Amino acid sequence: MSERILEFLRRREANGASDGPCVVVDLDIVRDNYETFAKALPDTSVYYAVKANPDPEILNLLANLGSSFDCASVGEIEMVLATGAKATRISYGNTIKKERDIARAYQLGVRLFAVDCVEEVEKIARVAAGSKVFCRVLCDGLGAEWPLSRKFGCDPAMAPDVLEHAHRNGLETYGVSFHVGSQQANLSAWDLALSMAAGVFQEMALRGIELKMVNMGGGFPARYLKEVPGVPSYGEAIFSALTKHFGNRLPSTIIEPGRGMVGNAGMIEAEVVLISRKSADDELRWVYLDIGMFNGLAETLGEAIRYPISTQHDGGNTAPCVLAGPTCDSVDVLYEKTPYELPVSLSIGDKVLIDACGAYTTTYSTVGFNGFAPLESHVI
Amino acid sequence: MSERILEFLRRREANGASDGPCVVVDLDIVRDNYETFAKALPDTSVYYAVKANPDPEILNLLANLGSSFDCASVGEIEMVLATGAKATRISYGNTIKKERDIARAYQLGVRLFAVDCVEEVEKIARVAAGSKVFCRVLCDGLGAEWPLSRKFGCDPAMAPDVLEHAHRNGLETYGVSFHVGSQQANLSAWDLALSMAAGVFQEMALRGIELKMVNMGGGFPARYLKEVPGVPSYGEAIFSALTKHFGNRLPSTIIEPGRGMVGNAGMIEAEVVLISRKSADDELRWVYLDIGMFNGLAETLGEAIRYPISTQHDGGNTAPCVLAGPTCDSVDVLYEKTPYELPVSLSIGDKVLIDACGAYTTTYSTVGFNGFAPLESHVI
Repeated sequence: MSERILEFLRRREANGASDGPCVVVDLDIVRDNYETFAKALPDTSVYYAVKANPDPEILNLLANLGSSFDCASVGEIEMVLATGAKATRISYGNTIKKERDIARAYQLGVRLFAVDCVEEVEKIARVAAGSKVFCRVLCDGLGAEWPLSRKFGCDPAMAPDVLEHAHRNGLETYGVSFHVGSQQANLSAWDLALSMAAGVFQEMALRGIELKMVNMGGGFPARYLKEVPGVPSYGEAIFSALTKHFGNRLPSTIIEPGRGMVGNAGMIEAEVVLISRKSADDELRWVYLDIGMFNGLAETLGEAIRYPISTQHDGGNTAPCVLAGPTCDSVDVLYEKTPYELPVSLSIGDKVLIDACGAYTTTYSTVGFNGFAPLESHVI
Repeated sequence: MSERILEFLRRREANGASDGPCVVVDLDIVRDNYETFAKALPDTSVYYAVKANPDPEILNLLANLGSSFDCASVGEIEMVLATGAKATRISYGNTIKKERDIARAYQLGVRLFAVDCVEEVEKIARVAAGSKVFCRVLCDGLGAEWPLSRKFGCDPAMAPDVLEHAHRNGLETYGVSFHVGSQQANLSAWDLALSMAAGVFQEMALRGIELKMVNMGGGFPARYLKEVPGVPSYGEAIFSALTKHFGNRLPSTIIEPGRGMVGNAGMIEAEVVLISRKSADDELRWVYLDIGMFNGLAETLGEAIRYPISTQHDGGNTAPCVLAGPTCDSVDVLYEKTPYELPVSLSIGDKVLIDACGAYTTTYSTVGFNGFAPLESHVI
């Protein structure tokens, strides 16, 4: 827990400015995370996944540290360029792009694009001639907290046809990408994916086309309630899989940490709005916070992420609670199937601290569902 | 399909302003819906559920038509007051309220509050002395597209204790509320709920406290792909259940239509960004739109709502598609378990029209996930 964040929150409270929930991100932790990635994989380029948290101060810090950026849209590309970083440090990593957005990105200087089908290759060939493309391949995501759907990537067997199509249309067939699934705790997932990537390199070589780069995506976990392997373990596992599958001819490599870069750097302060029971003999308390699915904690959907929550009563007796958000929407329940243990002495009006909230909180917030403001954000 | 909306979209296109998706709401349809509710239940007050769509023009229209308003927050109360409507036409219907928000609402003139536990009663007694309260009771939601969770309301057996507590604390014990579940197509759901409400009235009478009002909530469906009963059928079923359970001493009644008031009044225009297959022999096409879970279509979560979609190719052969949104988020898939039939000749760049999008689209939109703007909204 960041002492700087706690101090910020104390000052906010003292200033009487603590009416709604807020997230506070500690840039020192982001810097540490960047350096840890850079050290664990010294020959790999770090492309920060902007969608995890596009706060300008985070982007500025990472730009200064030398990071590159994975962008999902022209909007995100413009945010990165606003830091002064050159467009050559940007990958337009969304496989789903309007042709006119590709054209805009190209005008802004972007020359690296993701594809997963010939239709996307043709758009890029038409409006971003000569650019580098990499083909995203499907990956089964075994061991990830969220095995990704089949939304992104093509079957590995189709990737060479997509890349050859790019080559014939005047694009630079740069490489292959995959994503092992978000919050991936299984280190061997990268081994499997890199073996598949090496297969595409070999098939392309047979077709006389040399690939140069493997984009190993994200998936690096943040620590929530469960322990996860540290970044150095990932680095070792990945380096060993790379040499296993590519031998002495190691490709250029990219990683795209988002959650792994900022997840543990942020903390949300929220308030207990109500504690009640549904009947006189109800064993569960319902604890309602002023934050929920629609103003910051969207990733509790399906109870996927269990955030660490601390209160001023920690250490005393606890009892299970259903934890819910403040809106008039019955979907806005954070933990119900697996109730959350909270102190028996927790009271209405108490503040609670929700840790590891630096990624995927602010931008998932709705514009104002139920008339509640989007999540207030501070970067310190 | 509203000819006025189609004409608006043609002009938008002609003006070259159609780069992103938008929703267009036809106020004539909202007016018709209000009048249909007022006619179907002439002795019932209509409290529009502001959260369904808080657009100022919709609120102005409904205020002029004589509607009252169900608000979830002080933010929504302020939006209603901005129309010029008096605070006496507002119900603060959220059972989860900060004490200082109750105080603000009271200062703004609101005198009608929902509760479902003694803890909430005590807040209201402290800062909104003498106000009317109604107690929300749990309802099983059988037959609803979304049976609500147990988040709102207490066990019917506990309601008299909550109401008696209000009475003893100087509040006016006004009545009972329930919600039969969203998009409720089972007319007998109201019968069951009203029988329960009548039971609470009787128990309170035994305790010497007279209740006066039943808030029958929302749940009135919009027509998506499936047929639903018309509002007059609901009116008849509700009136008949009221007389069955309350005899000649009918209480005052409230309904809170949101989806039923604006759902069918809006249409989204979106664009096909990409159509692809995942492998050479894939039978399914993946169709990616520029709208998805995070910029307007959050209610496709769990594939709950199947919106009617029309294209310029309708009438020709169709084939099943997975339909997905434009973000780099694998959750952003609209229909996959049950693929959606779309024309074989549908092409990248085509516009599609998604009907019945007037409710729960604009405000569910994120502030900018993946760098995409919130849903653009027009009310005509």
